[in-house]
Amino acid sequence: MNRVICFGEIMLRLTPFMHQRLEQSKSFNMDFGGSESNVSAGLAQLGIPVAYVSRVPDSPLGKSALSSLAQWGVDTSVSVLGGDRLGIYFVELGAGRRPSRVIYDRKQSGMHSLKPGMIDWNVVFRGAAWFHWSGITPSLSASAAAATLEAINAAREAGLLISCDLNYRTKLWKYGAKPSEIMPALIEATDVIVGDEDVLDAYFGLKTDGIDDAFSKLSHRFPNLKYMVLTDRKGLTASHFQYHAYLYCNGRTYESQKYELPDVIDRIGSGDAFMSGLICKLLPSGQNPPDLQKAIEFATACGVYKHYIPGDLNIFTESDIVSLMEGSTGGKVGR
Amino acid sequence: MNRVICFGEIMLRLTPFMHQRLEQSKSFNMDFGGSESNVSAGLAQLGIPVAYVSRVPDSPLGKSALSSLAQWGVDTSVSVLGGDRLGIYFVELGAGRRPSRVIYDRKQSGMHSLKPGMIDWNVVFRGAAWFHWSGITPSLSASAAAATLEAINAAREAGLLISCDLNYRTKLWKYGAKPSEIMPALIEATDVIVGDEDVLDAYFGLKTDGIDDAFSKLSHRFPNLKYMVLTDRKGLTASHFQYHAYLYCNGRTYESQKYELPDVIDRIGSGDAFMSGLICKLLPSGQNPPDLQKAIEFATACGVYKHYIPGDLNIFTESDIVSLMEGSTGGKVGR
Amino acid sequence: MNRVICFGEIMLRLTPFMHQRLEQSKSFNMDFGGSESNVSAGLAQLGIPVAYVSRVPDSPLGKSALSSLAQWGVDTSVSVLGGDRLGIYFVELGAGRRPSRVIYDRKQSGMHSLKPGMIDWNVVFRGAAWFHWSGITPSLSASAAAATLEAINAAREAGLLISCDLNYRTKLWKYGAKPSEIMPALIEATDVIVGDEDVLDAYFGLKTDGIDDAFSKLSHRFPNLKYMVLTDRKGLTASHFQYHAYLYCNGRTYESQKYELPDVIDRIGSGDAFMSGLICKLLPSGQNPPDLQKAIEFATACGVYKHYIPGDLNIFTESDIVSLMEGSTGGKVGR
Amino acid sequence: MNRVICFGEIMLRLTPFMHQRLEQSKSFNMDFGGSESNVSAGLAQLGIPVAYVSRVPDSPLGKSALSSLAQWGVDTSVSVLGGDRLGIYFVELGAGRRPSRVIYDRKQSGMHSLKPGMIDWNVVFRGAAWFHWSGITPSLSASAAAATLEAINAAREAGLLISCDLNYRTKLWKYGAKPSEIMPALIEATDVIVGDEDVLDAYFGLKTDGIDDAFSKLSHRFPNLKYMVLTDRKGLTASHFQYHAYLYCNGRTYESQKYELPDVIDRIGSGDAFMSGLICKLLPSGQNPPDLQKAIEFATACGVYKHYIPGDLNIFTESDIVSLMEGSTGGKVGR
Amino acid sequence: MNRVICFGEIMLRLTPFMHQRLEQSKSFNMDFGGSESNVSAGLAQLGIPVAYVSRVPDSPLGKSALSSLAQWGVDTSVSVLGGDRLGIYFVELGAGRRPSRVIYDRKQSGMHSLKPGMIDWNVVFRGAAWFHWSGITPSLSASAAAATLEAINAAREAGLLISCDLNYRTKLWKYGAKPSEIMPALIEATDVIVGDEDVLDAYFGLKTDGIDDAFSKLSHRFPNLKYMVLTDRKGLTASHFQYHAYLYCNGRTYESQKYELPDVIDRIGSGDAFMSGLICKLLPSGQNPPDLQKAIEFATACGVYKHYIPGDLNIFTESDIVSLMEGSTGGKVGR
Amino acid sequence: MNRVICFGEIMLRLTPFMHQRLEQSKSFNMDFGGSESNVSAGLAQLGIPVAYVSRVPDSPLGKSALSSLAQWGVDTSVSVLGGDRLGIYFVELGAGRRPSRVIYDRKQSGMHSLKPGMIDWNVVFRGAAWFHWSGITPSLSASAAAATLEAINAAREAGLLISCDLNYRTKLWKYGAKPSEIMPALIEATDVIVGDEDVLDAYFGLKTDGIDDAFSKLSHRFPNLKYMVLTDRKGLTASHFQYHAYLYCNGRTYESQKYELPDVIDRIGSGDAFMSGLICKLLPSGQNPPDLQKAIEFATACGVYKHYIPGDLNIFTESDIVSLMEGSTGGKVGR
Repeated sequence: MNRVICFGEIMLRLTPFMHQRLEQSKSFNMDFGGSESNVSAGLAQLGIPVAYVSRVPDSPLGKSALSSLAQWGVDTSVSVLGGDRLGIYFVELGAGRRPSRVIYDRKQSGMHSLKPGMIDWNVVFRGAAWFHWSGITPSLSASAAAATLEAINAAREAGLLISCDLNYRTKLWKYGAKPSEIMPALIEATDVIVGDEDVLDAYFGLKTDGIDDAFSKLSHRFPNLKYMVLTDRKGLTASHFQYHAYLYCNGRTYESQKYELPDVIDRIGSGDAFMSGLICKLLPSGQNPPDLQKAIEFATACGVYKHYIPGDLNIFTESDIVSLMEGSTGGKVGR
Repeated sequence: MNRVICFGEIMLRLTPFMHQRLEQSKSFNMDFGGSESNVSAGLAQLGIPVAYVSRVPDSPLGKSALSSLAQWGVDTSVSVLGGDRLGIYFVELGAGRRPSRVIYDRKQSGMHSLKPGMIDWNVVFRGAAWFHWSGITPSLSASAAAATLEAINAAREAGLLISCDLNYRTKLWKYGAKPSEIMPALIEATDVIVGDEDVLDAYFGLKTDGIDDAFSKLSHRFPNLKYMVLTDRKGLTASHFQYHAYLYCNGRTYESQKYELPDVIDRIGSGDAFMSGLICKLLPSGQNPPDLQKAIEFATACGVYKHYIPGDLNIFTESDIVSLMEGSTGGKVGR
Repeated sequence: MNRVICFGEIMLRLTPFMHQRLEQSKSFNMDFGGSESNVSAGLAQLGIPVAYVSRVPDSPLGKSALSSLAQWGVDTSVSVLGGDRLGIYFVELGAGRRPSRVIYDRKQSGMHSLKPGMIDWNVVFRGAAWFHWSGITPSLSASAAAATLEAINAAREAGLLISCDLNYRTKLWKYGAKPSEIMPALIEATDVIVGDEDVLDAYFGLKTDGIDDAFSKLSHRFPNLKYMVLTDRKGLTASHFQYHAYLYCNGRTYESQKYELPDVIDRIGSGDAFMSGLICKLLPSGQNPPDLQKAIEFATACGVYKHYIPGDLNIFTESDIVSLMEGSTGGKVGR
Repeated sequence: MNRVICFGEIMLRLTPFMHQRLEQSKSFNMDFGGSESNVSAGLAQLGIPVAYVSRVPDSPLGKSALSSLAQWGVDTSVSVLGGDRLGIYFVELGAGRRPSRVIYDRKQSGMHSLKPGMIDWNVVFRGAAWFHWSGITPSLSASAAAATLEAINAAREAGLLISCDLNYRTKLWKYGAKPSEIMPALIEATDVIVGDEDVLDAYFGLKTDGIDDAFSKLSHRFPNLKYMVLTDRKGLTASHFQYHAYLYCNGRTYESQKYELPDVIDRIGSGDAFMSGLICKLLPSGQNPPDLQKAIEFATACGVYKHYIPGDLNIFTESDIVSLMEGSTGGKVGR
Repeated sequence: MNRVICFGEIMLRLTPFMHQRLEQSKSFNMDFGGSESNVSAGLAQLGIPVAYVSRVPDSPLGKSALSSLAQWGVDTSVSVLGGDRLGIYFVELGAGRRPSRVIYDRKQSGMHSLKPGMIDWNVVFRGAAWFHWSGITPSLSASAAAATLEAINAAREAGLLISCDLNYRTKLWKYGAKPSEIMPALIEATDVIVGDEDVLDAYFGLKTDGIDDAFSKLSHRFPNLKYMVLTDRKGLTASHFQYHAYLYCNGRTYESQKYELPDVIDRIGSGDAFMSGLICKLLPSGQNPPDLQKAIEFATACGVYKHYIPGDLNIFTESDIVSLMEGSTGGKVGR
Repeated sequence: MNRVICFGEIMLRLTPFMHQRLEQSKSFNMDFGGSESNVSAGLAQLGIPVAYVSRVPDSPLGKSALSSLAQWGVDTSVSVLGGDRLGIYFVELGAGRRPSRVIYDRKQSGMHSLKPGMIDWNVVFRGAAWFHWSGITPSLSASAAAATLEAINAAREAGLLISCDLNYRTKLWKYGAKPSEIMPALIEATDVIVGDEDVLDAYFGLKTDGIDDAFSKLSHRFPNLKYMVLTDRKGLTASHFQYHAYLYCNGRTYESQKYELPDVIDRIGSGDAFMSGLICKLLPSGQNPPDLQKAIEFATACGVYKHYIPGDLNIFTESDIVSLMEGSTGGKVGR
């Protein structure tokens, strides 16, 4: 079995139309999103069996959030109902010199009040090969952090590979603990991490100088890590990025091609798209070990593609990604 | 001075378009609303000086909520900033045999965590003649109920007339107290109430049989009440109502004409529209006592008109209301 | 040749969405409309050769107004360019007890500043059999009234049948003349009129008591009139009308069936739809005189149908109208 | 196992906004729908395990059609890919005296070119208790009719209960065969039918006079039928219906309450909603036979509710339906 | 007479809003388009008398497609009604690194089933000076290819100049014939071609190396060609192109200025816009031969402008184009 | 007191959606805007007490225009009602090589017919420190120019600082006078001007060669000017600008940093945003003279930010501006 389990919070996303600011908006586009659910939808589109586990309220919005994933082929039957409300987040899409802005309204959500024991991990992990979580869940509340640890331990026991998207959000981590007090223990039981270099200090107290130094210090600090990935995104403006990534494994670094990303539509979720591509290619299948150069190229191209899809989810086919990897500029109309 | 002070919670209102259900909606119309803020906007459109006092978070949404009232001429400078979030409510507009549905997401709002002492009522009531509150505020939390009592007492001391829209919401009152444990004391210090007959049992333990009986029992139970109003709304379907109202004062009952309301657009806020019309006509001005028959007719017509305005607020002019009172069927195009 | 010439003002129509009032609207639906242009589009859909003559500014809006008619098959090549601006009108669609509201912004339009001599009527009337004007044009300005008289005289000379929709608008006639000083002379040279009974006093000083009395007094006052039509529309609410019509010719009155019109979508333009149906059936063709009973039935059904089409224009086929005449309730889905 | 299998064609549905006609529309609302897929989505919302089997093209639209059902919990894994295109249908929503109009563009669809042998019914029917088809599929093409017979025979062999919604569409049946040449053989192997009385002549050559006569003649002609249902819908206008239904079983007729349905939003799919309610209540479960009075009441209320939901699908919960059955007028706001 | 006849297929174009993918879209923008109809609308806006000849179904959509051209001044009276359906095409507008995607649903359209003899070319070509067709029509079906040949022969006989936009679409040509089996014969009777260099191999088996070589080989292969145009479009991304063109005549090559096209809105139809500009300037008028340098500059600027107009049609005035030719960067607001 | 008074015309702004041209648009986004009202809304958002004085018709549109400013905290109580209509302007938002286009429809507006004596400047200027006007008002009509002079003289007498945005519009100034006959006298009584170098010839007959020369000649011609600002905007395309500004005071020139502005959303109102930033920082407060380098940097950053906000108004906080000044590229999502 190569089923992947993604664990995290899914929220209602409200986005003003036409690049309006919240203060001038009179209507919202609506979808559902969250880092780990975005990963699950990406995996499902790549044909990977995937389940999403979360805690959402027993309400029309809570159930619609799960249904929205079912549409893409994600199994949400292992999620549990509970909590006062579904988290909400507002996204102002910037452009040019105006940055995008995310405003969270996620307190008292089902995941905020998640506690160890609420999810039966034995059931969740049945038939699974991979467990994915991110740094957002332990940032929500002390009990959510404890539940994350519970999940990781159960995954480890069940023999799953465990991945974490570090996902540092400065507007979270408001419940008293610093990330550096929580994250190291979680990462010590994790196999794969993905992040940016600048989160390493906040999370692990690692001051690093460049990719090589970062991989070196990370591998000393967390010898358990099988794969480490650092993405490098430079925001020239809110509409123009440069993007590539590095994968480190067993002392060797694999670097993706570099992409120039002008005229970006919506970069929210691009890291999640990257993650889904990475898991897809690292997921054990058959006897062959994964082709790591191809894995980092594929993941990066997934991330690139998402910059041009509105909403939280990457909507794509494998051939869209392969085109990018093979050099498509985007300038040809498929007709 | 004849300034009116309205006190309550304003929320972000999200409404699916085209009568869609929440589960199928992909976008929301957005406005801000709340019973007492709706009253304030109605009063402002009638030319009455009015201030709105609430507690909203120091956030783009919180401030936009207040700004939305400023547009109609309401003074919001006496409101205070605070609390974790702005309450949200979702409105599914029904039609025919499908009822409308309101879903609240208002926990942890600024008004939910309001406590006595947070608002300086001496400042708020400076130059004011009337204080309006509703049964929604004490239903939010014990501390909000206490703050309501504080406000009423301060208003009494400052010599204001005090009105309450009973506004019973079965989905609220979830913090432990029953309405009947809280409301009587608040009404004992109030001068004017507006409500439906069927709330009297839940609020005051009064079992009544018809309008006359209700007025009789209310006036015995609350001899302090100067004006009592009972509205009578019959919902033939979600799109068709019958509507009229009774005003009781000094042993005499004044009854409005009866309206048939087919093809209703949005009945949310019609009670608030009624309230703004009532306060406008009962507000002391000059030496003449209010014309009570005219007051109940005007208030009822305000309530009627709101059924045909989308959103929480009544958007109208006094002449729109007078036309209704004088028998306009709506069937003539003004051109 | 049986070409019809329609003469009048076409305007930009701006309509708030979702029954919003102007004061709360953030966007407008846009189309072009005007009584006589609406008639021309109706005739074209019925297969009648028709030209529309107006004066619009030489601007993107002016030319788009004419193009919008070309789409339906109306020949606009006889219209002339000129004037400062295209008239605009705002339509608030009411419902139930809230009346619809029309707000004109049409001063300084090309038709407002139209003067005799600006249109070469000899060219316009080449090959034409019928000339249609309405009471709106002479209400705009003294020079527009003079141009209307010029047009009527030219049509008379060219041997055309001439029809007038009386179309009384109380918000117009602001340039000094009363309708009763202008309209009689114009009607004296006209063959066919359509109107409501209550306009007869304002236009002609005729106080009448019912349809028969009205026809009788009209035929004495205007012995030139070949056909007179009075429509009877009762507005139970802004969404519900009762509608039928009477045609008088040579001492005989033909009455259409009576229609109940609940759940109306947009009644603006229903009189124009009626007019197009009437002209279609009265237009001389071959040797047979028109079937007057059928004419009044057809015209009325055209008017009925327009109540259910959004925008200024009736969008229909002859078979839609015939279905109505034959008793379709609307309750069957065509599939 | 009580799994239900629904078999039919799903199409892209394009609906002009705001009651516009196709000829004036500039944009379309889009969803997916089809009689049998609508039934499957209704069953899934009622908690019944349900699979939908169809043939859609291997294209973005074809796959999106299936995904749209997954969102509601329908298993579409048994559907097959094939055919040139996804059928499309356009819906003009009428109102009042203007009927709604459906325009099909479904030739060359995957179901139009379906042939026996393309679907592996043994796999489809594994674990299933009920098979549902409708009169639309055999109307598409001779090969689709043959495939329908194949399916019914396989279902019979597998011991399933078989239901058919007669669903007569005059715009279909264009491939040469008359319904009366095809339908009788299919119904002879079916257990449950739902239809209107007026289809019985076209389908079976049965001229009937009233419900009792219809049931009597049907039971003679098709002694195999276990349950027969006739719905009675009267269209007062395009927005106002009267609706109720009769269920016949073993010589006894059960009649639902009668509903008045004013202010209808979208009646398309109401028959499918009815069907989902009926199957839900007739589906064998445990030892008790179904409560037939309750079944016809529940089915009818499901059909009623759909008239007020935009789009092809009924979006509802069981409690929405129970409220209707218990007399809710729709006039109360749930808050 | 300098009337131009454009011949081809017009389709319903459905475009998701806001750069959405088909799989996530819930509504479509709608217009009508097709290569040759786009050319006709462009010519009409330039004041050239132009007729469009096609075969569309006798349905609301078919007739609306023609009406949409009438709005711009194109004469569609020579088109014929017939065929099962109107072709549809879906356009996903890409951006940056995500290519745009066109999905055709045009089988069984009126043009797909067009056969020789269906159009009376003698009538169509009355008073015409120029006939325009494109490589799309012969790609649809064998009978459409035959009808194209019939048209070309008739045009030749009538003494018209004949132009062809090569317009190679890899998703078409599915009926059995290769382009190279069909196109050469058609081009041998044509006077003017426009295309890209890379189509020459697929169409004519010409392997070329650069513009000069291409013109040289084309003029040997098709000595009949009076004017040959090759456009050079480089797609840096889906939003950024480089664009210019070459015109060859009598051994001389005329090259337009080079344009940089960032921030493109919709490039679909830019080739058609180019074509309309080219025909406008090459169309014989008076005694002077066309100014070929001006012709290629004008055509190129028309093509440039279209990249910034949403939808299939170029919406422009001659002065918009002249501004571009004279160096307007676009950076000045006209006010 | 540091209250600012802004004086000018506010209009209804109608903007086609999705970069459509007016000729293809079917709906408009609507807001209200005008140079000086935009300045007032900007100042209010910066916390500066500000009043807006204009003349708008006593109509729903006129009053809504004022209300729209109240929402942002602008005091509009000093505006007066009058005139026939509210001015309207249409904005086509260009992109890339297609310029934006503004079409005015502002004749006969309240400001067009403004005359001296209509506004009581003594009341308006009570408690004010600064008066702002622009070159648009005197361009409307001779009487509006006279009223502007009246206002400036009154402001001077009341001891206010006076600023002018030169704002040259070639489509205005149609009433007979040339700018050079009107503007010099107005500027002679003004303290602060903002403009582009190329307006100096049209307004003052000053032919200048570069910023230094322009400041030198301006200071000789208008020795009264305390601050002179020249902005330098280069339009590379309709979506990409380069932008910076110079402030001259007492013989010294302060230059802002240079900004590259790709992917612009809406540049209309950027000059007004600049102006609000400039007034905010030059407004006397306490004893310290303004920091002129900071003032020109802040104003420029305000102008930059507006390029990325849809509509006429800048929607921003001071910290958004400070981020830009401190080097934010826009490439980081705030979350």
